[in-house]
Amino acid sequence: MQWARGKSADGTVITGVVEDGMLHPRAALGSADAAGEAVALETLEMLAPVQPGKFIGLWNNFHAAREKQGLEVPEHVLFFLKPASSVAGPSATVKIPEGVGRVVYEGELGIVIGKNCANATVDEAEDAILGYTCINDFTAIQVLTADDSFPQWTRAKGYDGFGVIGPVIETDLDWSSVSIRVEVNGRERQNYPASDMIKPPAQIVSELSQDMTLHPGDVIACGTSVGALPVKAGQEVEVLIDGIGGVKVTMG
Amino acid sequence: MQWARGKSADGTVITGVVEDGMLHPRAALGSADAAGEAVALETLEMLAPVQPGKFIGLWNNFHAAREKQGLEVPEHVLFFLKPASSVAGPSATVKIPEGVGRVVYEGELGIVIGKNCANATVDEAEDAILGYTCINDFTAIQVLTADDSFPQWTRAKGYDGFGVIGPVIETDLDWSSVSIRVEVNGRERQNYPASDMIKPPAQIVSELSQDMTLHPGDVIACGTSVGALPVKAGQEVEVLIDGIGGVKVTMG
Repeated sequence: MQWARGKSADGTVITGVVEDGMLHPRAALGSADAAGEAVALETLEMLAPVQPGKFIGLWNNFHAAREKQGLEVPEHVLFFLKPASSVAGPSATVKIPEGVGRVVYEGELGIVIGKNCANATVDEAEDAILGYTCINDFTAIQVLTADDSFPQWTRAKGYDGFGVIGPVIETDLDWSSVSIRVEVNGRERQNYPASDMIKPPAQIVSELSQDMTLHPGDVIACGTSVGALPVKAGQEVEVLIDGIGGVKVTMG
Repeated sequence: MQWARGKSADGTVITGVVEDGMLHPRAALGSADAAGEAVALETLEMLAPVQPGKFIGLWNNFHAAREKQGLEVPEHVLFFLKPASSVAGPSATVKIPEGVGRVVYEGELGIVIGKNCANATVDEAEDAILGYTCINDFTAIQVLTADDSFPQWTRAKGYDGFGVIGPVIETDLDWSSVSIRVEVNGRERQNYPASDMIKPPAQIVSELSQDMTLHPGDVIACGTSVGALPVKAGQEVEVLIDGIGGVKVTMG
């Protein structure tokens, strides 16, 4: 099943299930309750499929990137938060802010939470996952290291539009079989297997749920691997995962 | 004017203005539109006066603490985010999670945003401030430094209940004249003047608004100074600022 969110011509925002080119409204993300007539997708402006209450990003969660950077396997999942204002959806224009230096894409698998989840076992955590989406975790890499005393994770990753989510949330994905790909102007620039993850999704959710209560709609970006590169204004940048689709934005 | 938020016996959550022991409901935080009959404060369970969309915390923003730690004056405001799930209000019980080691209180002045605010000048930023509140930015200090490769700001400061806000938002505070105090079991343990701030509130808001769009209800904790100390289960911990009041929680 695929969840999506769209805005109709009159400004109504609809969360629902995609089927046969239509968005079938539901009472809330993950709800089985219908909430109105189906609407043709082509009449909607598609948004990020969810506006997360918490938008968590992982660092150092792929072996290939870890080995390249000479890092240890982390004992506990390492994470930062992206602000709600950083969220962008399909077809957005993502402005490269003035004076921030290089901005890199980071294609990532995203986990979307479907149930309240605190101090969860791995099995309980698995059950709390609603589905998976594509994430582009844009990062101003020179901002990250601009102050010697304090790595600025939130600032570097928090500019408006730096948290691309979409196009849908797929509930039936075998995450271990997919690759995360990024195309810039249609040319593949990043491609790595999800199976190279250090902490798999249910383990991530279980560990995070020891740190804070997770709620429906919370999104966790699973971290990126090798191949993140700078982008320029005018480029089209798409993150693609088979079974989910692609979420493309234009750099402004 | 003082804004507060309370839950009535039937579970309704009311945001409004405090006057003569009553909460006068308003359509939204900062709105001039009345939204129903006034309710006696004593019949309400008081909540954090706002549930922030973004809960931003500053680091290294007081000269006394900076000098003690041998830090430089930061060029740009240094910050992290606390998750929405960390918010607690007056009279909450804040559980010290198992196995996290020492947890310290950090009494802080909180800024509450009243208007959308992006790339704001200092004057525009001043105008975007709705008012001020008391914050207790609890921190699990051993978690912060548990991984040598990645300081865990969000994890250390993100546990449920670690972001205490209250009791009200005061719109008419002269922030430069107040002190931020913390009492543990009624005994004063932290007391420092807001005027020792490195970046004053309007400067903070202006700089943050270069990094991300701020929205009404966003909360910025201005950072703490010297005197943050560990707490134990059973202790009552209150952050007090003259003109705002005190927000007291019990450690569980």
